[in-house]
Amino acid sequence: MRSLPSYVQLKEVGPRDGLQNEKSWITTEDKVNWINMLSTSGIKEIEYSSFVNPKMIPALSDAREVGKRIIRNPDVKYSALVPNIKGLEYALEAGIDGASVFMSASETHNQKNINKSIQDTYPVLDKVIVEAKQAGKHVTGYISTVFDCPYEGKISPEKVLDVCDKLIESGVDDLSLGDTIGTAVPTQVEQLLELLLQHYPKEKLILHFHDTRGMAIANIMTAMHYGIYRFDSTIGGLGGCPYAPGAAGNVATNDVLYLLEGLGINTGIDEKKLQEAGVFIQNKLNKTLPSRSLAYLKNA
Amino acid sequence: MRSLPSYVQLKEVGPRDGLQNEKSWITTEDKVNWINMLSTSGIKEIEYSSFVNPKMIPALSDAREVGKRIIRNPDVKYSALVPNIKGLEYALEAGIDGASVFMSASETHNQKNINKSIQDTYPVLDKVIVEAKQAGKHVTGYISTVFDCPYEGKISPEKVLDVCDKLIESGVDDLSLGDTIGTAVPTQVEQLLELLLQHYPKEKLILHFHDTRGMAIANIMTAMHYGIYRFDSTIGGLGGCPYAPGAAGNVATNDVLYLLEGLGINTGIDEKKLQEAGVFIQNKLNKTLPSRSLAYLKNA
Repeated sequence: MRSLPSYVQLKEVGPRDGLQNEKSWITTEDKVNWINMLSTSGIKEIEYSSFVNPKMIPALSDAREVGKRIIRNPDVKYSALVPNIKGLEYALEAGIDGASVFMSASETHNQKNINKSIQDTYPVLDKVIVEAKQAGKHVTGYISTVFDCPYEGKISPEKVLDVCDKLIESGVDDLSLGDTIGTAVPTQVEQLLELLLQHYPKEKLILHFHDTRGMAIANIMTAMHYGIYRFDSTIGGLGGCPYAPGAAGNVATNDVLYLLEGLGINTGIDEKKLQEAGVFIQNKLNKTLPSRSLAYLKNA
Repeated sequence: MRSLPSYVQLKEVGPRDGLQNEKSWITTEDKVNWINMLSTSGIKEIEYSSFVNPKMIPALSDAREVGKRIIRNPDVKYSALVPNIKGLEYALEAGIDGASVFMSASETHNQKNINKSIQDTYPVLDKVIVEAKQAGKHVTGYISTVFDCPYEGKISPEKVLDVCDKLIESGVDDLSLGDTIGTAVPTQVEQLLELLLQHYPKEKLILHFHDTRGMAIANIMTAMHYGIYRFDSTIGGLGGCPYAPGAAGNVATNDVLYLLEGLGINTGIDEKKLQEAGVFIQNKLNKTLPSRSLAYLKNA
């Protein structure tokens, strides 16, 4: 086995990727209070909302207000999802440390998700990337369906590399590789990283797992053996899967933290505060979230 | 990474370890029908009940009747948990291919669970092992709390090895190593296997994980890199944790199967039939079971 990293940085994407896929309505007030709890938990990066067309994702239509009202902890980077120049303007006005642009490695998924071919998506993102960099912001390129696509099946690592290359050329600082439908198994993670790490240093790569089939912790373990030390997660495993109502969401921050603490890997996160923030949003959503550790600690 | 096994054998312990920890009452009729479904799913070994004192585990007080009524598939081995000579007699009468004896690697857990010290447990198990072997039965030695104990904390691999040695001396055919409270992380699995595999061939070792903190799939992945190819699991992740109501149970057979199929590892199990058996018992228990794959497939 390769050795494990000594430090791992978790980006909390619950307020964005989590709530985007939850059915219950969370008020702006509750979001602000919840993000403020997350801000004092030791988490170093929070994706607080998405500046997409509010008609597309009504649950996040208060992105501007949330951005303006949250209490910023100077030790935390606040980022948001930004689809285009218009979104970037709103995001800059609301306040961001980082902008995340997004597209898919699968042609069909890209088409269905952002209504454009992969080729036609690049110039749109290029504009956002250039302008965000000019504004002094960190830019992350999210790539969806890097392992499997709900329409096309397996996506080849070469296809993912091609999208990585284009986004890096446009100026993104790093890449977040998404197992959007939560279907990858560890050998797929190995295959993708074997290729990408020939082209990019591990510092450029973030992995973003969903736990739809319960593989996320094993996949994170595998990625860490390749030196990857940055992961996206949602508190409680918020999120669900748009293709299967009732399925699990993103990998749960609480479960990843349990793993990392057990392995002796530092994160700077306070488990108790994380737990409180998890219970808070679980109560607001009025449902049991998928995180095993959240369920355990709540009842132990 | 070490290479993975090409074949993995799952022992379905849902009818025993699963139901033992569930609150809902399942009728004998339903158990028999459910075990019959499992018997035709391609699973090669089923632990159908426990012949402990019915007062201790009322949920399994119908062990004898279940054993007599299930339809035996000649390709499946049927085993049961047996605490003592009296239990073995009942089990032999009800019909078993294998007997599982059990004890704990933790002194305190052993004391609380079977009301004897570790030293005083050996002679009781020795009798059962000898008599079961004389009756021509396969005997598995279950060892609980091989990683962590709810009372004593970390259990050293040396302590586990000591219990393994005693049970092997008594004549057990193999050993099932239990992460009883589902707290182990992959490095603990590595440490234990590094030691045990110096003393025993991989054929002798079975791993038995609970998914209380969501680590089970990663732990199985780790164990497979050591050549381990036999695991205990429960359909749907049945079982729960006696120390935390609402927590997850054993690792879910459905999730392990998803992992193995994704890795190209053969099990002989039919996912669809497994799914049907999972939905059947989920409906009888009238609750959502923890398995990610069961939830996904039921709603996809």
